Amino acid sequence: MAKTIALLGSTGSIGQNTLRVVSEHPEEFRITSLAAGTNVDLIIKQWQQFRPSLISMGSREAAERVRSALPDSVKVVWGRAGLEEVACDPQADTVVSAVVGSFGLRATLAAINAGKTIALANKETLVAGGELVMRQAKTNKVAILPLDSEHSAIFQCLNGEKHQQVNKIVLTASGGAFRDYSRNQLKEVTLEQALQHPNWAMGKKVTIDTATLMNKGLEVIEAHWLFDIDFEQIEVVIHYESIVHSMVEFKDKAVMAQMGTPDMRGPIQYALSYPDRLPLSSEVLDLTKLGTLHFTQPDVERFPCLGMAYAAGKAGGTMPAVMNAANEVAVERFLDGAIPFLGIEQVIERVMNAHNPVSVGDLETLEEVEQWARALARETPVL
Amino acid sequence: MAKTIALLGSTGSIGQNTLRVVSEHPEEFRITSLAAGTNVDLIIKQWQQFRPSLISMGSREAAERVRSALPDSVKVVWGRAGLEEVACDPQADTVVSAVVGSFGLRATLAAINAGKTIALANKETLVAGGELVMRQAKTNKVAILPLDSEHSAIFQCLNGEKHQQVNKIVLTASGGAFRDYSRNQLKEVTLEQALQHPNWAMGKKVTIDTATLMNKGLEVIEAHWLFDIDFEQIEVVIHYESIVHSMVEFKDKAVMAQMGTPDMRGPIQYALSYPDRLPLSSEVLDLTKLGTLHFTQPDVERFPCLGMAYAAGKAGGTMPAVMNAANEVAVERFLDGAIPFLGIEQVIERVMNAHNPVSVGDLETLEEVEQWARALARETPVL
Repeated sequence: MAKTIALLGSTGSIGQNTLRVVSEHPEEFRITSLAAGTNVDLIIKQWQQFRPSLISMGSREAAERVRSALPDSVKVVWGRAGLEEVACDPQADTVVSAVVGSFGLRATLAAINAGKTIALANKETLVAGGELVMRQAKTNKVAILPLDSEHSAIFQCLNGEKHQQVNKIVLTASGGAFRDYSRNQLKEVTLEQALQHPNWAMGKKVTIDTATLMNKGLEVIEAHWLFDIDFEQIEVVIHYESIVHSMVEFKDKAVMAQMGTPDMRGPIQYALSYPDRLPLSSEVLDLTKLGTLHFTQPDVERFPCLGMAYAAGKAGGTMPAVMNAANEVAVERFLDGAIPFLGIEQVIERVMNAHNPVSVGDLETLEEVEQWARALARETPVL
Repeated sequence: MAKTIALLGSTGSIGQNTLRVVSEHPEEFRITSLAAGTNVDLIIKQWQQFRPSLISMGSREAAERVRSALPDSVKVVWGRAGLEEVACDPQADTVVSAVVGSFGLRATLAAINAGKTIALANKETLVAGGELVMRQAKTNKVAILPLDSEHSAIFQCLNGEKHQQVNKIVLTASGGAFRDYSRNQLKEVTLEQALQHPNWAMGKKVTIDTATLMNKGLEVIEAHWLFDIDFEQIEVVIHYESIVHSMVEFKDKAVMAQMGTPDMRGPIQYALSYPDRLPLSSEVLDLTKLGTLHFTQPDVERFPCLGMAYAAGKAGGTMPAVMNAANEVAVERFLDGAIPFLGIEQVIERVMNAHNPVSVGDLETLEEVEQWARALARETPVL
């Protein structure tokens, strides 16, 4: 019996890689429904290949164009309600959540309440809504499987192990485009330089987050929620080659590590095939070709965003959501050329300092503080 | 309820480390019986600490000295029969097999037939007797848990995974004392040089085997039997730092690795506590202190013993036992100063070439060919 999959965010890079995995294993996986933004041409191609019976688009206009291109038997919906309809598609047993931004959180919560197994790439879902999400996942007895390489690595390292026997989790980080830059050099870096990433081809937002180390900070918060582990037990190690995807140290000091060549399909396929493993046409890891693996400590003096993420995580409540929202706006402003690279951390710091975190009672609380944080981040002046 | 343990080879380095593990967890483990060779003083000290009710010594004379030093309530036996009595001690549920040489095989088989869980350090048991041992372990539904760091690493990497989803096993090797030596340099090396090992403090025989890479070859054969995997699916990688203890690659190209600081107690404790992990006072692994991990391919031109071990393993039947016996004698001759370092491989090659392997029907077949191989190895001239 094939696993049935509703895919939120099918035209993004994780979505496309998910579909590559599905297409390699047609007997194992079947796509029931897709949700995308406004890339009409691509979603039509995806429909031609995977024949989902339900499609949701980000706007009414995009939905109408899709509607007119596909047979009547395909249901086409749109907007937030459309996204949630895909998330709750009764034909699907697994929902892949790869929509960027806070839309993803609402849809993921809907999928959890509908009892779906969640394969999660959407960072905001756990960073902002971790408390809500994990509470509802527990209530609904729903598994949340990570789609990104670091958390998948940890998840694989924990396979067959007992939670209370974990000492700590070690997240690896490539160090981003500026890992060897001094603070003075960081003052001068350009957008073009920031968009270079040594090992992975990713979207712009993630690439900038990687350069500030905020991406790793968000992953620390995700790991806290996904694996129910204290922030004191989560470490970050800079590992240039992105071969060791992450590690877990146990009570007996044994360290389990998951490695591989950088290929997004690995963790995606693992989440879909779990607890099994299926063949994958990715490149074999040959450590002898590589020769050396390097590890250094992250420098929170040069990259304060990592420290801010720990601080936000430890403060708890609405603070991570506020930090995340401020970061989103700050990165947008940097991508627009409105602020320099080091302006990003200034914006986040200002917004966090202005916030007194409260408990995340419901989605509305969250959306309210996020709105407040975005507004403040937009108008925060940068020196 | 404490696990009850009969320890074969208590005065050797694995035996002593086993007792350190036991002494750190008195509520988890209890020693019921000990077997040793001729180190009377040490076994008496061990008795004082662990109070086993049964002790076996390697000789009648040693047993008599132990007998006179201990209360009458302690049973003291000796020789091959004594060793087997300890191996079958009805008080013990686990037998730690850490006796060197082919004595260990017979005792381990006895323990298997008595239904004990086996924690195995004795290489000969699987190299020579793998076919017999695994057959009887299967019949008696007995688990065989590895005590050495490489096989324990693989065993840990396989935790929670399915056998048919394994692509290959990657055994790491330090490379030994001469890893960067040319063939010409190897001609001149002295016994003193050969006894230097970069990362582990071990017995002389193992240290020489490490320098010839025969040790890794024997581990390849052990891995074949322990994990029921083809020789084509077992790789050896030279890894200078001995931090990655070994790895497993799965069908999806994911590689799981087990790492740690070099400390024999890790794998020993894991075998005893399995499937749990207990705290261990060993040193924490800090990859950022270490900075780099190195990996290169082994060179079978310079170190032909590794190739011979693969050849022996693939030939099957009695060939690995013959190779192992020839190696034992050759290393003895080298340690006695009778042959040069490169004489070891000559002796093994000559003996293997003279042998037509037959199936290992029983222990007697094995002992016969081993005797023949030892005799030939002793008289093989070295150029």
